[in-house]
Amino acid sequence: MSNTIGKNIRISLFGESHGEAIGAMMDGLPSGIKIDMNFLNSMMDRRKAKGNISTQRKEEDQVKLISGVFEGKTTGTPLTILIENKNVQSKDYDSIKDFMRPSHADYTAHEKYYGYQDYRGGGHFSGRLTAPLVAAGAICMQILHDQDIEIGSHILSCQGICDDSFSTDEKVLKKQIENMNQVYFACLNDQAKNQILEKIEEARKNQDSVGGIIESAILNVPVGIGDPTFDSLESVLSHALFSIGAIKGIEFGLGFDFANHTGSEVNDAIRYEEGRVITLSNNNGGINGGISNGMPIILRCAIKPTPSIFQMQQTINIQTKKNVEYSIVGRHDPAIFHRARVVIDSMIAITILDCLIERKGILSFMGEKK
Amino acid sequence: MSNTIGKNIRISLFGESHGEAIGAMMDGLPSGIKIDMNFLNSMMDRRKAKGNISTQRKEEDQVKLISGVFEGKTTGTPLTILIENKNVQSKDYDSIKDFMRPSHADYTAHEKYYGYQDYRGGGHFSGRLTAPLVAAGAICMQILHDQDIEIGSHILSCQGICDDSFSTDEKVLKKQIENMNQVYFACLNDQAKNQILEKIEEARKNQDSVGGIIESAILNVPVGIGDPTFDSLESVLSHALFSIGAIKGIEFGLGFDFANHTGSEVNDAIRYEEGRVITLSNNNGGINGGISNGMPIILRCAIKPTPSIFQMQQTINIQTKKNVEYSIVGRHDPAIFHRARVVIDSMIAITILDCLIERKGILSFMGEKK
Amino acid sequence: MSNTIGKNIRISLFGESHGEAIGAMMDGLPSGIKIDMNFLNSMMDRRKAKGNISTQRKEEDQVKLISGVFEGKTTGTPLTILIENKNVQSKDYDSIKDFMRPSHADYTAHEKYYGYQDYRGGGHFSGRLTAPLVAAGAICMQILHDQDIEIGSHILSCQGICDDSFSTDEKVLKKQIENMNQVYFACLNDQAKNQILEKIEEARKNQDSVGGIIESAILNVPVGIGDPTFDSLESVLSHALFSIGAIKGIEFGLGFDFANHTGSEVNDAIRYEEGRVITLSNNNGGINGGISNGMPIILRCAIKPTPSIFQMQQTINIQTKKNVEYSIVGRHDPAIFHRARVVIDSMIAITILDCLIERKGILSFMGEKK
Amino acid sequence: MSNTIGKNIRISLFGESHGEAIGAMMDGLPSGIKIDMNFLNSMMDRRKAKGNISTQRKEEDQVKLISGVFEGKTTGTPLTILIENKNVQSKDYDSIKDFMRPSHADYTAHEKYYGYQDYRGGGHFSGRLTAPLVAAGAICMQILHDQDIEIGSHILSCQGICDDSFSTDEKVLKKQIENMNQVYFACLNDQAKNQILEKIEEARKNQDSVGGIIESAILNVPVGIGDPTFDSLESVLSHALFSIGAIKGIEFGLGFDFANHTGSEVNDAIRYEEGRVITLSNNNGGINGGISNGMPIILRCAIKPTPSIFQMQQTINIQTKKNVEYSIVGRHDPAIFHRARVVIDSMIAITILDCLIERKGILSFMGEKK
Repeated sequence: MSNTIGKNIRISLFGESHGEAIGAMMDGLPSGIKIDMNFLNSMMDRRKAKGNISTQRKEEDQVKLISGVFEGKTTGTPLTILIENKNVQSKDYDSIKDFMRPSHADYTAHEKYYGYQDYRGGGHFSGRLTAPLVAAGAICMQILHDQDIEIGSHILSCQGICDDSFSTDEKVLKKQIENMNQVYFACLNDQAKNQILEKIEEARKNQDSVGGIIESAILNVPVGIGDPTFDSLESVLSHALFSIGAIKGIEFGLGFDFANHTGSEVNDAIRYEEGRVITLSNNNGGINGGISNGMPIILRCAIKPTPSIFQMQQTINIQTKKNVEYSIVGRHDPAIFHRARVVIDSMIAITILDCLIERKGILSFMGEKK
Repeated sequence: MSNTIGKNIRISLFGESHGEAIGAMMDGLPSGIKIDMNFLNSMMDRRKAKGNISTQRKEEDQVKLISGVFEGKTTGTPLTILIENKNVQSKDYDSIKDFMRPSHADYTAHEKYYGYQDYRGGGHFSGRLTAPLVAAGAICMQILHDQDIEIGSHILSCQGICDDSFSTDEKVLKKQIENMNQVYFACLNDQAKNQILEKIEEARKNQDSVGGIIESAILNVPVGIGDPTFDSLESVLSHALFSIGAIKGIEFGLGFDFANHTGSEVNDAIRYEEGRVITLSNNNGGINGGISNGMPIILRCAIKPTPSIFQMQQTINIQTKKNVEYSIVGRHDPAIFHRARVVIDSMIAITILDCLIERKGILSFMGEKK
Repeated sequence: MSNTIGKNIRISLFGESHGEAIGAMMDGLPSGIKIDMNFLNSMMDRRKAKGNISTQRKEEDQVKLISGVFEGKTTGTPLTILIENKNVQSKDYDSIKDFMRPSHADYTAHEKYYGYQDYRGGGHFSGRLTAPLVAAGAICMQILHDQDIEIGSHILSCQGICDDSFSTDEKVLKKQIENMNQVYFACLNDQAKNQILEKIEEARKNQDSVGGIIESAILNVPVGIGDPTFDSLESVLSHALFSIGAIKGIEFGLGFDFANHTGSEVNDAIRYEEGRVITLSNNNGGINGGISNGMPIILRCAIKPTPSIFQMQQTINIQTKKNVEYSIVGRHDPAIFHRARVVIDSMIAITILDCLIERKGILSFMGEKK
Repeated sequence: MSNTIGKNIRISLFGESHGEAIGAMMDGLPSGIKIDMNFLNSMMDRRKAKGNISTQRKEEDQVKLISGVFEGKTTGTPLTILIENKNVQSKDYDSIKDFMRPSHADYTAHEKYYGYQDYRGGGHFSGRLTAPLVAAGAICMQILHDQDIEIGSHILSCQGICDDSFSTDEKVLKKQIENMNQVYFACLNDQAKNQILEKIEEARKNQDSVGGIIESAILNVPVGIGDPTFDSLESVLSHALFSIGAIKGIEFGLGFDFANHTGSEVNDAIRYEEGRVITLSNNNGGINGGISNGMPIILRCAIKPTPSIFQMQQTINIQTKKNVEYSIVGRHDPAIFHRARVVIDSMIAITILDCLIERKGILSFMGEKK
């Protein structure tokens, strides 16, 4: 219904994979925030295609902030992120535009837009559109860091290979998040990491692709964030995260495993400890009744295998109205979950900042009054 | 952030478990829709507590439509649903208001509202608030039926007992949905049904509770519903469904199982068949790129065990600031997933109608012009 | 598009003139606010029909708060205002439902809702719907009083008779506002008051009606409230005020008279005075670039004559599709601007509170933490 | 609260007067609309500064559509308008940034953004930001033309000089609108035009400025557009129009003059005429109960004199905290109402298209299905 998300911090997204530029507009930012371009670029870097396990379309993705920043700081008026499309090979797409790629948005977009969508490289549905989201997320993340809020994710599983889960000890968890935010391919356990990399390499060789699960943690969200019923913290986080094309499942805390347990096994006992209210376990993933309880927020996202595979597939030609067999050409990733991780972190950062401003008011986040 | 959901159809929710009344306001309805109170009450009935497996607080839940209906038909102006609270035993709660029930919203609500929330029976966070949602859902469902859209759910699993999955054959699925919408405790497989009922009974005897998974299907949603990025169909459905207090996980199509598969295994081949575009498998659960593709929409919700159990639990007294041991009294359900099923159906109906009006315009849904 | 207004404080309105009840839902209120029912009822009283100059339908308008209040204080969850319709004479309307009353919403509502609207007494378009708005406004006003913000209005003109304008001296203005908020028929100048009352009485005798202009002032709005461009303070105030059916013009500061002046005559000189920034004149009515400047906000609303007059009028019968002559029967006001005044104050209070929460955050408005 | 306006068609605005670029994002457009760049540029041309009566900053204002258009037609995904700032003389502003220009947004922006706003040339508050609004308006206008809806405005008065009012005869009015849309300085009466031009020239010579009133008409809006109460057509139009910085008053139909009339004088008699429902007079300006009645919508906007005058003025230095005398330098307009006219038309077009999509659904506006 809208290409804008958020209530207090609003992010709008625009552009097509092979258009002139892609970008995002951020509205509602506090003023006086010094933009740390190094940090922003480090997040952009973790989203980039790298090595064999990614598409060979390597984009420079140079982020320009064309409004809303003055003398290096946010002005409080809309901040526009622009990324020009440079490494574009649009003629690749001329001959294949009528073939609806299975499990892609080609067919649904064609029907929705009556055939007028920009079909080149997935157009507005391309994974490239997540680049400005990461830039926007980085700016939100920076503001959250000033509030001691930390966000991080790792690859939990792929093809039956499981990484360790995030620690239930907050101090260890904090360290794990820091580590994950330093690396490109984020696993807690090195053996699992290597095995998952092998699975991706195997998929690449087979002209195939693989999916995976990303586990995310959010530290130090104060108690009382989120709303009952329609804007529960689970509601707003899942709304934001399901924006990411390949995500097909989201769970909080124990999630689907709750179905295998009794209340007495999984209820989180509440205790005063060192002058603070905590729960002894965290099966609810830091959220009760839609509202944060001060414990780490834990969630997991299921990411489907990249639909672009080079094997022969059955589909239709939308112009000739015929069933066809068809093999995708071009430059594609055998896996995207390792790159999607930083997009997940970004959507979480955008959402949590939005909720935090809702609760604390924008003045709590602004730079010192001149 | 808001007790209202929806863009074209907007539902607002109000009331507390032990207040004078609970209710919902529906805004944006087409005019001239004859309200079928029998159908509405049949859905209300499926949400009710019944038998041993439910709370002994049996509410009449008589739905009154106090605005927006004239001569039995919608006027097009806001329709207000009111349900008076009758079977209220508020003094039950006086002695226990300072004990924060584990895995409930007591503590988070106390912090969010600075202690001013109505604590009796969970107040605004009570499961009772889902009653007006079901009434609202029934009205939306009725409008969807006129568009040939069918929605239904069943209990997929509990404590390791698994019901059959919904059929991948659309005709069979249609029949299954019809059947599920006739029964109170909805399983496709009778043996699974009895075993799950035993698990609930066992939990009840143990002063415990159990969680479960609900599988839902939506039939005949036209192609092109939903939006790229921020308002993907997964985004808006999950936003609505995570409004339901006990839901902690949502997945579409293969969901979390995508992590175990390769693209070549799970991509949905596209075909023309009988003059219509279909996919040979439906691993994406009817949604590509956030937009419906015409296949059945399939989703699953994980519901945690009712946190109200009668065993002794560890928690805090928020007034004395002490750790305490505490046993919940009152009237509670050992399982709620079987009742939550119709709330899920209702939130789906509300969301799909909203999306459908977005696409087709409200005039397509109105009664004949007088 | 929506029967809800506001971003942080959201007011939804429901009901019909001859339905069971009318009401409003308030969402986003801070918790712990003690509701002053005496103050609320005093505002309701100023909206009531009184004496010869008003309709003879005298409604008790007893306000019930059926949710969102616990132990006399706001809970922070939705507060629902309900007013039952008691003095209803619905059979009055049976014979006349097909006659579209000139300058009323009868014809436009009939076309919009395809004839399904509740036509009795104007249905959802009735001026009665402003009663719950005043109750909602009173609650917002009470919160604003705690922030030292004062709102008041008077009848500036009717039929060429002009009351004095509000004083440009803030201390005098404060006193004037206090006075106006004590009286039913609000003029600053007694002679003007009597002459305007005569004009209304004359209209009543002539089976006619009169319009007027209401001038409003808002004191002590802090600097920095409102946004550039689309949510300028003028935009959000006018949006709210044009919700009131009879209002057909709104101006801020000099308003339409700006067209007769030069910049050098009307620019407001800025000065430091007693440690505070003020403007020497206030031609901009307290708003620059859409944002409050700390001076009193001054605005005027033009209210058209009540369209219900008892003289013979030309109109159509929507069923027979014929031109007819027709004389309205029933109970109607020869003037409503004196009653509309408190509705204006209410819509202003709702809007200013919304903007204030946007700026300062909801925590600034909540009761002391328990 | 937001730099976005609209529900179905959403326009977001970004940029600063002396930043890299200004622009707008349009979301919710129907797909398959051929963009007529000649028409768009003709509207841009009418907004431009021309001759002596305008600022000497002459901007090329070349509109680039960097997303949402493919092969010359709208794709249905966000359309981004970008206008680079070229004729920028930013060093003009270094020495004067601490002087708060009277009746400008300098002081309010400084307080709102804590001093971090881009102060150069008014930054985000500059009238330059209306350029992308006109481009967006032109695209909406083009879609409205396909629905036979016509929008036009003229200068009604300035300094006591009055142009003729728009005709009450719809055919004549249609011709007048066509004429006004062909000219740069829009008056119906040539004598009035010359006299107003003289007033502007006189103001320029006096280092002063003048304000004026713009009258607008909207033809062929179907019956039933707009909503009761909070989104009345007056509410949404005034919200959009008060976005334009210099507008300080808006009235519909008779507007403020309603206060001088009785109901019997101004009620609009309703008649069937040539198979259509019309009103014999149009004192309500085409809107009853917030909903269009099929008659021309007539409204007037009051525009204050440009606050930038070259005479010595009293103000403050926000850094030194001193009262100062100060004379504005730079390039400024002695009048802007003639240029604001096309911005008014644009905001009307954006708003009416939004309302029309709300009513008729987006599919009614899309190009032929491919």
